[in-house]
Amino acid sequence: MAPRLPLLLVPAALPLASSARAAEGQWPPGMLGELSQAHLQQMGLRRPVSDLWADGEGLLGAVVNFGGCSGAFISADGLVATNHHCAYSALQAASTVEHDHLKAGFVARTRADEIPAKGRGTLLLLQRIDDVTAELRAVADRAERDEARRAAVEAASVAMAEACEAGRAHVRCEVKRFGFGARFERHQYLEFEDVRVVFAPPSAIGEYGGEVDNWMWPRHAGDFALLRAYVGPDGTPRAWAEDNVPYRPERHLAVGHEGVAPGDFVAILGFPGQTERYLWAAALRHQVEAELPALVDLYGEWLQITRAASEGDREVAIKVAALNKGLANRHKNLLGMLAGIQRMDLLARRDEEWAAIKAAAEAAKDLEALQALMDLERSTAQRGATLHRDILLTQLSRGPRMLAAAVDLVRRAEVRHLPDDKRRPAFQERNADLLWKTIERRVADFDPEVEGALLTSWLRRAAALPVGQRLRPVDDLAKRLAGVPPEAIAQAILAGTALPRAGMARRYFDRGTPSAMREASDALLVLAIALAPEVERVEAQEDLRDGVLLRSAPHYLRALARVRTGPLYPDANGTLRVSVAQVMGYSPQDGLLATPQTTLQGQLAKDTHAPPFELPESVRAAARAGAAGYFADPALEDVPVCFLANGDTTGGNSGSALIDGEGRWVGLNFDRVWENIAGDVAYNPARSRNISVDVRFVLWLLSITEGAQYILQELGVAELAKAPRRTVAAPAASASPAPAPKKSACACVVPGATPANGGALVGLAVLYWIRRRRGASG
Amino acid sequence: MAPRLPLLLVPAALPLASSARAAEGQWPPGMLGELSQAHLQQMGLRRPVSDLWADGEGLLGAVVNFGGCSGAFISADGLVATNHHCAYSALQAASTVEHDHLKAGFVARTRADEIPAKGRGTLLLLQRIDDVTAELRAVADRAERDEARRAAVEAASVAMAEACEAGRAHVRCEVKRFGFGARFERHQYLEFEDVRVVFAPPSAIGEYGGEVDNWMWPRHAGDFALLRAYVGPDGTPRAWAEDNVPYRPERHLAVGHEGVAPGDFVAILGFPGQTERYLWAAALRHQVEAELPALVDLYGEWLQITRAASEGDREVAIKVAALNKGLANRHKNLLGMLAGIQRMDLLARRDEEWAAIKAAAEAAKDLEALQALMDLERSTAQRGATLHRDILLTQLSRGPRMLAAAVDLVRRAEVRHLPDDKRRPAFQERNADLLWKTIERRVADFDPEVEGALLTSWLRRAAALPVGQRLRPVDDLAKRLAGVPPEAIAQAILAGTALPRAGMARRYFDRGTPSAMREASDALLVLAIALAPEVERVEAQEDLRDGVLLRSAPHYLRALARVRTGPLYPDANGTLRVSVAQVMGYSPQDGLLATPQTTLQGQLAKDTHAPPFELPESVRAAARAGAAGYFADPALEDVPVCFLANGDTTGGNSGSALIDGEGRWVGLNFDRVWENIAGDVAYNPARSRNISVDVRFVLWLLSITEGAQYILQELGVAELAKAPRRTVAAPAASASPAPAPKKSACACVVPGATPANGGALVGLAVLYWIRRRRGASG
Repeated sequence: MAPRLPLLLVPAALPLASSARAAEGQWPPGMLGELSQAHLQQMGLRRPVSDLWADGEGLLGAVVNFGGCSGAFISADGLVATNHHCAYSALQAASTVEHDHLKAGFVARTRADEIPAKGRGTLLLLQRIDDVTAELRAVADRAERDEARRAAVEAASVAMAEACEAGRAHVRCEVKRFGFGARFERHQYLEFEDVRVVFAPPSAIGEYGGEVDNWMWPRHAGDFALLRAYVGPDGTPRAWAEDNVPYRPERHLAVGHEGVAPGDFVAILGFPGQTERYLWAAALRHQVEAELPALVDLYGEWLQITRAASEGDREVAIKVAALNKGLANRHKNLLGMLAGIQRMDLLARRDEEWAAIKAAAEAAKDLEALQALMDLERSTAQRGATLHRDILLTQLSRGPRMLAAAVDLVRRAEVRHLPDDKRRPAFQERNADLLWKTIERRVADFDPEVEGALLTSWLRRAAALPVGQRLRPVDDLAKRLAGVPPEAIAQAILAGTALPRAGMARRYFDRGTPSAMREASDALLVLAIALAPEVERVEAQEDLRDGVLLRSAPHYLRALARVRTGPLYPDANGTLRVSVAQVMGYSPQDGLLATPQTTLQGQLAKDTHAPPFELPESVRAAARAGAAGYFADPALEDVPVCFLANGDTTGGNSGSALIDGEGRWVGLNFDRVWENIAGDVAYNPARSRNISVDVRFVLWLLSITEGAQYILQELGVAELAKAPRRTVAAPAASASPAPAPKKSACACVVPGATPANGGALVGLAVLYWIRRRRGASG
Repeated sequence: MAPRLPLLLVPAALPLASSARAAEGQWPPGMLGELSQAHLQQMGLRRPVSDLWADGEGLLGAVVNFGGCSGAFISADGLVATNHHCAYSALQAASTVEHDHLKAGFVARTRADEIPAKGRGTLLLLQRIDDVTAELRAVADRAERDEARRAAVEAASVAMAEACEAGRAHVRCEVKRFGFGARFERHQYLEFEDVRVVFAPPSAIGEYGGEVDNWMWPRHAGDFALLRAYVGPDGTPRAWAEDNVPYRPERHLAVGHEGVAPGDFVAILGFPGQTERYLWAAALRHQVEAELPALVDLYGEWLQITRAASEGDREVAIKVAALNKGLANRHKNLLGMLAGIQRMDLLARRDEEWAAIKAAAEAAKDLEALQALMDLERSTAQRGATLHRDILLTQLSRGPRMLAAAVDLVRRAEVRHLPDDKRRPAFQERNADLLWKTIERRVADFDPEVEGALLTSWLRRAAALPVGQRLRPVDDLAKRLAGVPPEAIAQAILAGTALPRAGMARRYFDRGTPSAMREASDALLVLAIALAPEVERVEAQEDLRDGVLLRSAPHYLRALARVRTGPLYPDANGTLRVSVAQVMGYSPQDGLLATPQTTLQGQLAKDTHAPPFELPESVRAAARAGAAGYFADPALEDVPVCFLANGDTTGGNSGSALIDGEGRWVGLNFDRVWENIAGDVAYNPARSRNISVDVRFVLWLLSITEGAQYILQELGVAELAKAPRRTVAAPAASASPAPAPKKSACACVVPGATPANGGALVGLAVLYWIRRRRGASG
């Protein structure tokens, strides 16, 4: 069966005439050959695209995955650049009360000073990709019942991954779906367990702007950190050991210390996590009109609780910090998502596309596709029917976390006697560590008042569920406790549980059985035992829907490919991808232009001497001189801090290396702009912009940090750090082979203009204009 | 004595080489001849500057003052354009419960439907200016004591104004100080009492964005209204009468229905109220470090009270609305002022200048100037000594307004037996109407709870005054009521006054005597009687300081003129001025550019369907078609709504007509950007931007309003309103004599670019860049 899909493999007839369109797409290494070399050259790539990846070789060989983030080798001695927020946990682990490396920053003055970040993430380096579509489509298509298809595919995937890992130390294998399961690939990684922290800026730099600037432009954060992979003396990865040595990667990126200018080509190399660019109309409508608003409402209420707690007692604030941050981030994200979808008028566009898909399938007499379209619509409709109940059950871990922990303990106890392949992945022994860490954190962060308020909210919402979505355990509780207000019920439940007691959760985790837990008469466990089957029922429904999707995917995507305009590439799924882009600004709203670069002086201007805008005194002092040094941009006449590009990125792209047209490392992606949050469901040429730290800020900060000399030397820029600012070679610019004709051509006819300063702005406006015009006509 | 001042009369050696500098200055008509015609031409003025004003004749003859705002005649039949917020009170007066012209907007379908705005402002048309410096400097210099100088000058000024008005109906004369009293002028106006409302947009358009957008860019408000001046059948002004006819002004502005583009010349014609560009260093320091922060603190507290009241009971909200709005506006303004002064590093610059002034005066052996500098510094120091007490006494009217009313009634009673020339201006019979209206409003808006909270705050602050600034009356009260909390005292005072009772305030106003008021045993009056001398003491100190200033002004300004770089022009003082400027954006912060124009589509994008962003359905419906019509900008491809220029404006410039290089009416100034609030103390080439409604939005709105046909006809654009969008004549642009070479030269070399769309953005960037570069080098 397994049809070859135009979506994934066909040399797509991409409308590459427009630079805006060209930036859309998170391209798997195997599809890079399909991109037009001529067009990439026009964008500014000066090397053959095969230099990126061909036959498993190329610049992409320098890219690593670090705990779900991205990173890249930037020296021959295994130095890795990633985001500060990606190294957060490692820095936390490396910190002590005396040495708070998060707050103060950290610089290893010699290699011996590099701190092991034990247990806080491993580095994964992609080694090979195998197409396993035939095998897994066969499994999917063999499943008779939709309900069982997902489990069958997952079991086969796990088996395939385990076979790949078997007997090979430090090899990690994953089988991944592409296109909803129309294609499957096995990705094999080399895993480095001994990762050490080499450099981190103070969090006042790494997180400059904090929640205020999160998702925002203009941005002035230095969100980067440097790690190093260590291996055994024989050069193969192993756990931390005294005599481990720096890894010498086959590939590393050269440092592009001249940085980028507006209009320059960049490619973003990383592991984007998840996008949903191919949602069918009904599914998008369900998201926009039902699910996202319901989550906004729920998170909004829980956020009020955690915010209030964050402003109170310091100890409570620390406990609730992660939960609060997560809720705030998701809440803001959902609002941006809804606004963005509305702004793009995406629902109407997808409705129109859906009608076209159907018509084209009918015209092609593609009966399998027509069946798939019908099944997907029906499946989405069923999803809406129990939405509010399902949300309460699936969102437990973002609210009453002790209850979530109890449910997980109960569910683990219930499958303890089963082999892994009969369990859901989350409860398999191979993932036990992960599950325990989650439960442990929830128990450690327990605060009776906050948990009480969240549980009260949860109970009140459960009591208000509409007919047809009622939760039996909650109704039973209400019947037995008629007249007792939810606050009191929540307090009684938390007063009546031993779970927060030291060691209790671990005991249940290690040895809990359903009967023992039932006999414990623990109020929270009683509720959890009653809820566990409800949670499982929601998951079973998800299995069913996923089974329909797995069955329908090849047909749906074949039908979609007949009508979708624009490039076709698989949704992000945590595998290695490349986005090609250009440095450019955008118009966040009528009357405003975001210019594509920010500077040290702008960072200084934001400094209020109070968090989240409180620069370290050392940076303040050095910043004024920054303009004179080598790392200052000759056009901006200052050290650039962050820059915008129209890259196609999402979560997981954090820490992605940006390379210039020569393949040199010029920046680190760390965020998107607020207007690009809806980018997860559709790329928008006018607003899809990613935010990166400029490599020159990284180098400048190293150059003003005492003790970072050996790092600069390792990067080959120690001498440059002492050099004066580069000047723009005015006549040479047009004589050089560099394809930046717009900028210089435009700047040079301005009476009296030199490329300095004006060039960047003019370039911005021109690029912006070109983009806008093509976007409108394309 | 009265020396001729370089500041005011000398053909200033203006550094007009830079366009940024050229925009600085609010030029009196008499100084326009000093501006370089060549430079104005370079900026885009295509007529001799003498067309604006020469020998009392010129385009400025179309400009009027309406209740402290500005406006201009725009038709031969006395049609006047001003801001919606300037006509607010007139619209309020013209409204009834059935016809709320503020909310719904108003259009007179025929002249007979135009509504008299009786008593809500008169139009003043400047007729002549006389230099009366010699006479008034003689009075000032004759005064022996500093304490008496102000009163002597004011009395002489009033006498001079009265002599000018004597026996001439509808003539209003004012004597005004320029340069702190280094120069005096008498301005003679023709006063139109019969002003009628012709057109006003719904407040949802006129105030679109409300407090949220106030002081902000991007802006999308249609802040305009049309009035008409009526006169008797003989053509001379008179009060409203049945048979009055439209006034036929000697001068009116032609309608520039083609609008403006980035880079275009504009002149802003109006009556800026007050600037303080020549504050000496110590006075600026006092403002920045003491007075403004103290006011921020005070207003901040009172604002919390009025905000809470605004959110409660609807009736209370209406009563407190004006007070709340005023406090919010001032509070925001002061914060912007402080931030702006800091951003300009103005204190340091003025300190430096002060040292230079002294040095230059010493070098010139200018002993009078040295004396003046010393006196001014000393005077400022004294001001700081009682700042906190003085603020409590002078700010009564922004907080506990009933107490302010009571103090005014007491003070009026105390001077009732004196002739006008022995009273302070506020208490003179000639100003009795104004005083009564103020008192009447305060009493009408009385709400015991809000007043109680404000009075409590006032009493608590008075009780906390430092030694040396104590208020005897408050201390006495505290002694007698030891232990009673301020809340209770405030409540007792308000419970013990009859002032809020109907007719009481008017009775005191008409017939109150000090003894009768003392005998009334009215708690509020008792406090007011005790406070009145304290208020008078503060005013006497102000007299003293002003006396020093009046004496020192000529010498100080002579000394300052030796060293101040940049143009020299008198501070705004409510007299007619011209600011020459260009349409241009700016950078509000690193990483952002404000583009100089906003559009209908941007207005639509802001529409949340809830105040303050709730467009009328008619505008929503018509807006989508706006792009196709004549009033759409060919480059923007949409109707422009607002635009930015680097005009030098301040309060009082509201409603100022903007004219283009041909002298045609192209917009109405209505605000400044947030970053330009500190413009009152110093013009900042990088951030001084004024915001105007584009004339094309005015015309477009008229064109979609049913019944506004005769207005369009009167403006000569009725046919155009039906015409399609203008196109940009691409080759003609460079062949035309229009001096916009930067824009077209730059746009035309962009591969494939047409001037449409791209031109505006490129032009912006170029202009921005040129401005910035010159600003940096100049």
